[in-house]
Amino acid sequence: MADKVRLSLDEVRSLAEVVLSRYGLSERHVEAVSDTIVAGERDECASHGIYRLLVCAHTIKAGKVALDAEPVVHDIAPALVKVDAQGGYAQLAFKLGKPVLAEKARRCGIAAMGLNNCVHFAALWPEVEELARDGLVAFAFTPSHAWVAPAGGKKPIFGTNPIAFGWPRPGEHPYVFDFATSAVARGEIELHRREGKPIPLGWGIDADGNPTTDAAAALEGAMLTFGGHKGSALSTMIELIAGPLIGDMTSAESIAYDGGAKASPHGGELIIAIDPARFLGSLAAEHLARAEALFEGIAGQGARLPSQRRYEARARTATEGVYVPRKLLEDIQALLD
Amino acid sequence: MADKVRLSLDEVRSLAEVVLSRYGLSERHVEAVSDTIVAGERDECASHGIYRLLVCAHTIKAGKVALDAEPVVHDIAPALVKVDAQGGYAQLAFKLGKPVLAEKARRCGIAAMGLNNCVHFAALWPEVEELARDGLVAFAFTPSHAWVAPAGGKKPIFGTNPIAFGWPRPGEHPYVFDFATSAVARGEIELHRREGKPIPLGWGIDADGNPTTDAAAALEGAMLTFGGHKGSALSTMIELIAGPLIGDMTSAESIAYDGGAKASPHGGELIIAIDPARFLGSLAAEHLARAEALFEGIAGQGARLPSQRRYEARARTATEGVYVPRKLLEDIQALLD
Repeated sequence: MADKVRLSLDEVRSLAEVVLSRYGLSERHVEAVSDTIVAGERDECASHGIYRLLVCAHTIKAGKVALDAEPVVHDIAPALVKVDAQGGYAQLAFKLGKPVLAEKARRCGIAAMGLNNCVHFAALWPEVEELARDGLVAFAFTPSHAWVAPAGGKKPIFGTNPIAFGWPRPGEHPYVFDFATSAVARGEIELHRREGKPIPLGWGIDADGNPTTDAAAALEGAMLTFGGHKGSALSTMIELIAGPLIGDMTSAESIAYDGGAKASPHGGELIIAIDPARFLGSLAAEHLARAEALFEGIAGQGARLPSQRRYEARARTATEGVYVPRKLLEDIQALLD
Repeated sequence: MADKVRLSLDEVRSLAEVVLSRYGLSERHVEAVSDTIVAGERDECASHGIYRLLVCAHTIKAGKVALDAEPVVHDIAPALVKVDAQGGYAQLAFKLGKPVLAEKARRCGIAAMGLNNCVHFAALWPEVEELARDGLVAFAFTPSHAWVAPAGGKKPIFGTNPIAFGWPRPGEHPYVFDFATSAVARGEIELHRREGKPIPLGWGIDADGNPTTDAAAALEGAMLTFGGHKGSALSTMIELIAGPLIGDMTSAESIAYDGGAKASPHGGELIIAIDPARFLGSLAAEHLARAEALFEGIAGQGARLPSQRRYEARARTATEGVYVPRKLLEDIQALLD
């Protein structure tokens, strides 16, 4: 473990807060962004933990994020809310819009929230998990930068376009998944590049459209979607519903806006919440219990629930802390020099 | 083409109507079910065309569908509607609920419809296409019978669990996809079995959990999801949101209810509709035009839009009619003996 350094979660938080404050983020943004970085380390999602401090610092230095943006909530329809993040990080916009979304979902049965004009680098699972802990079924979608080629094509046009889902489980952690519609998250390829490791075939193609195991070549060429034309269709859907549908950029527009700065994606996010109590009335508890039989049927045959590993990590890191690569920590500490 | 017979679309419709009437379906159901069978042939989706008449006849003979069910529409929340299909085919329930769903989506911005207690054999794309032609963004989900094993497991617990999506395109056919979260539709494996063809590896496993190319063995064992654990997560989501969330059966419950009759699945369906005009107001046309740039970016590099092949077939079969396997036609005509 000589190449790893142990940090408590409090130390992770302090590190995030110090770096983000030093780079000029307002206090409310420091808190909201640090929450997601701590959540990433806590759940051992290395690609969305303190590594992202390097990404934040770069994005801020490139002038691509509004440091003290105050998001504005617009109540636009009985079951729709939009939050204009005013060019700031998405986390604070979500935090301010979430109670409005939840209230609308409870009143109407289903509701949707569009986050607009925000800078995005975080995972979506903290958001759907939070809504599911409030008893709601939740979906989240966001485009990113045009890094991924459509099935049958060679040129990047989609983002890694994650889809996340949360389902409330009485007495248990929510059922949550969050996956990129690219074969892997871009952060995974970036970590391979940093560590000089080859990537498996199927993750990306080079600039000429040829399959490659070179992480740097795939980052310069195009990533591929998961699941062939089906993943490509889902990725298209996410471009549409978290782009034009909410009046925000596609991944191609986001990367054009970036203009080579290699900052975090700028654009929108769509979140949908459904209140099971409105669909089910007094039978909600009974039907949620039937969902538990499904989870038992999956886990009982040795198949993993997608959130399981994260929740196990969470239980462990609460007391043990986390082990982060020494080189990564040094790179982050150098941001403070 | 000696093994194929040419039928006009009118002849397809007549065939469907004669068979379904002979098997006792009420007039409203004959019309609604025939619509989807004609749509399947018209768009050259062989697995959802007249082949399904054999499936209907079997399901009716097994006593697993209410022949003259009159669906009941329940307006349960400002943005939610449920339609109790009363044990009949889903098509009529959708037809009766659709105007209520569309009205709610226009009023609230987003709305959801649960179809309950219905028998399901049709594709979902006709439904999302219809909503998209009305200017709405639409999603549809349904479980089926427990035929598909979760990633990392061996026992079937999921249905083929399709997800369908429709997006309105001004002056063009809607962008529509509809795919099973299994590696392929069960109908595809059934057609391979009927024709005595092997299936590719990755479609299914035998009853002992071993990979197989034998269509019959896969039908007796378990199908696999597309895209590994990501497809498995999506399939879980569909079980939940079109099962317990709307107070209806999971695929495991549906196959238990079937009790070995091998009839069509019984259960629910969830449809979500969003009105872009409510998200975008007077800017809707401008943003829908930006979506067109995305489609051009995909099709312009030679990648196929998922609905393209069906729309091309539709243009062709309107004048040329369709070519159906002679053996299939004979099997269907034998239903009338």
